[in-house]
Amino acid sequence: MFSTEICKILNIQYPILLGGMVFVGKGELTAAVSEAGGLGLLGAGGMSLEEIASELEIVRSKTSKPFGVNVPLARPDADEMIDVSIKGGASVISTSAGSPKRYTQMIHDLGCKVIHVVSSVTLAKKCEDAGVDIVVAEGFEAGGHNGYDELTTMTLIPQVVNALKIPVVSAGGIANGHGFVAALALGAQGVQVGTRFAATLESGAHQNAKDAIVASRDNDTCITGRTSVGPTRSLKNSLTAQIIKAENEGMPPDKLMEMIGGGRSIMACVDGDCEEGTVYCGQIGGLVNKLITVKEVVETMMAEAQEITGTLSSLSSPTK
Amino acid sequence: MFSTEICKILNIQYPILLGGMVFVGKGELTAAVSEAGGLGLLGAGGMSLEEIASELEIVRSKTSKPFGVNVPLARPDADEMIDVSIKGGASVISTSAGSPKRYTQMIHDLGCKVIHVVSSVTLAKKCEDAGVDIVVAEGFEAGGHNGYDELTTMTLIPQVVNALKIPVVSAGGIANGHGFVAALALGAQGVQVGTRFAATLESGAHQNAKDAIVASRDNDTCITGRTSVGPTRSLKNSLTAQIIKAENEGMPPDKLMEMIGGGRSIMACVDGDCEEGTVYCGQIGGLVNKLITVKEVVETMMAEAQEITGTLSSLSSPTK
Repeated sequence: MFSTEICKILNIQYPILLGGMVFVGKGELTAAVSEAGGLGLLGAGGMSLEEIASELEIVRSKTSKPFGVNVPLARPDADEMIDVSIKGGASVISTSAGSPKRYTQMIHDLGCKVIHVVSSVTLAKKCEDAGVDIVVAEGFEAGGHNGYDELTTMTLIPQVVNALKIPVVSAGGIANGHGFVAALALGAQGVQVGTRFAATLESGAHQNAKDAIVASRDNDTCITGRTSVGPTRSLKNSLTAQIIKAENEGMPPDKLMEMIGGGRSIMACVDGDCEEGTVYCGQIGGLVNKLITVKEVVETMMAEAQEITGTLSSLSSPTK
Repeated sequence: MFSTEICKILNIQYPILLGGMVFVGKGELTAAVSEAGGLGLLGAGGMSLEEIASELEIVRSKTSKPFGVNVPLARPDADEMIDVSIKGGASVISTSAGSPKRYTQMIHDLGCKVIHVVSSVTLAKKCEDAGVDIVVAEGFEAGGHNGYDELTTMTLIPQVVNALKIPVVSAGGIANGHGFVAALALGAQGVQVGTRFAATLESGAHQNAKDAIVASRDNDTCITGRTSVGPTRSLKNSLTAQIIKAENEGMPPDKLMEMIGGGRSIMACVDGDCEEGTVYCGQIGGLVNKLITVKEVVETMMAEAQEITGTLSSLSSPTK
């Protein structure tokens, strides 16, 4: 059911990928997504090499299915991260925030598949030229780091699909069967899901951060960092108000970075301070109203998707 | 084929609405969309009462099918616009940029249907409470006036559909069968299309503006007016660069309004100056690569949609 080209490439049952999420996508969540039939991707961005190794041990102890690791190429030790990941059993490396050219050949030589996350047609083409196996095109509605072009999932996916020969996965705005079928209708071969998986029982986020996502409504997220340091989407809170005020007052990038820093994610996701810390969340958070298990997310999404395609099919019949 | 609840309410064949577009959605385009089986909506925002009456005469001379008029409620003579529209044969009034409470009862009393355009769940609920027949929920990717909440079509539609009992139409990012099926998958009962219809042979836009839309790529649009005067999306050009520079330098709203003004639309859409004038265009413009007739747009969209639902249907089969 819903077995697409990427299921064959990644050796998975359902075309559903876990978005790489720092301090959220730890071993338990990664394993749960793979065990449910999708592809778990360890959010290794905030982890030391030792932490990656030990989280992957957790993954292996909980599933025998394929899994991967998300490696932000901005990390100076990206090549060691890749090495530790593959030694830890990852069969897929998802790269982001850097050139897809740098590591694709190396990862292929180590026998793994490469996924790269993009936010525009131009970068998607560069990925294809660099030889990556699958492109994840992520829209403006997604939580976390975001493209300057602000292209939305609805417009980005069909344009990227049109421009590429390799399979495209849709990310940004997908939390249930409706988003899943919409993504396939747009031409994607699968979906990458962040926010919905961040608010599951297996998610590594602090309970307060999960509760904040569940409580959020449609217009409770905002973009910060648009002026210079790089746009990211998170829940509106005391911190985002301070950042936006500082941006409006013209605070220079180095000062802004001091204000934001990596510690803000830890404050929210590890320590549970959702006012002074950063809770990454997509615009679809308003549709996430209950903490459930990863298995429930996946099974509900597939059941809804089947029902929706049935409805569409009867609507499209000329004899109706 | 694809006959939904809104087709019954509006008495049309396909659930496809023409977005209200000033200087673009004139009589000829309105008639063409209705004649092709959708619902033409005259973009009356920039027209005098006399012009509305004469454009509606053109519509009636070219089609005997139902059509409507888009009335921006910010116009001080909105009630006269509604009156002239209904006397001119409109059976639907689409209202935007104002409270849905003000005119809904009056329009219903005159025997017409009311559609209101929204960009958030809160406003959508207000529309339902006010008694409007259909809500159009428009995402951030759309050309023209845009909501401050920046909710994308992919995330706005399912949340609005969840919150309402009345039918929802999806706007923003829809130019072909992929977008159409995606919108229905998200729970919409139809689509409203702007950019794709602006670049048709029947569109009222200047040839240069049509050519500029056809030439545009995924990241060739931008938002101006975000800081104070109200966000709008248009093609990047000399004017948008000037506006964004002025906004970054803190230009006050009254000066910004002087800089932008209504005349900028006329410069592009009527006089053909696409560098100093405003060419409204959505992010889906990159997918619009050829000037075709309205009939071709509608027929291609429906044929693609049928093919896509067929593919989805076979994917969803557990026996595959």
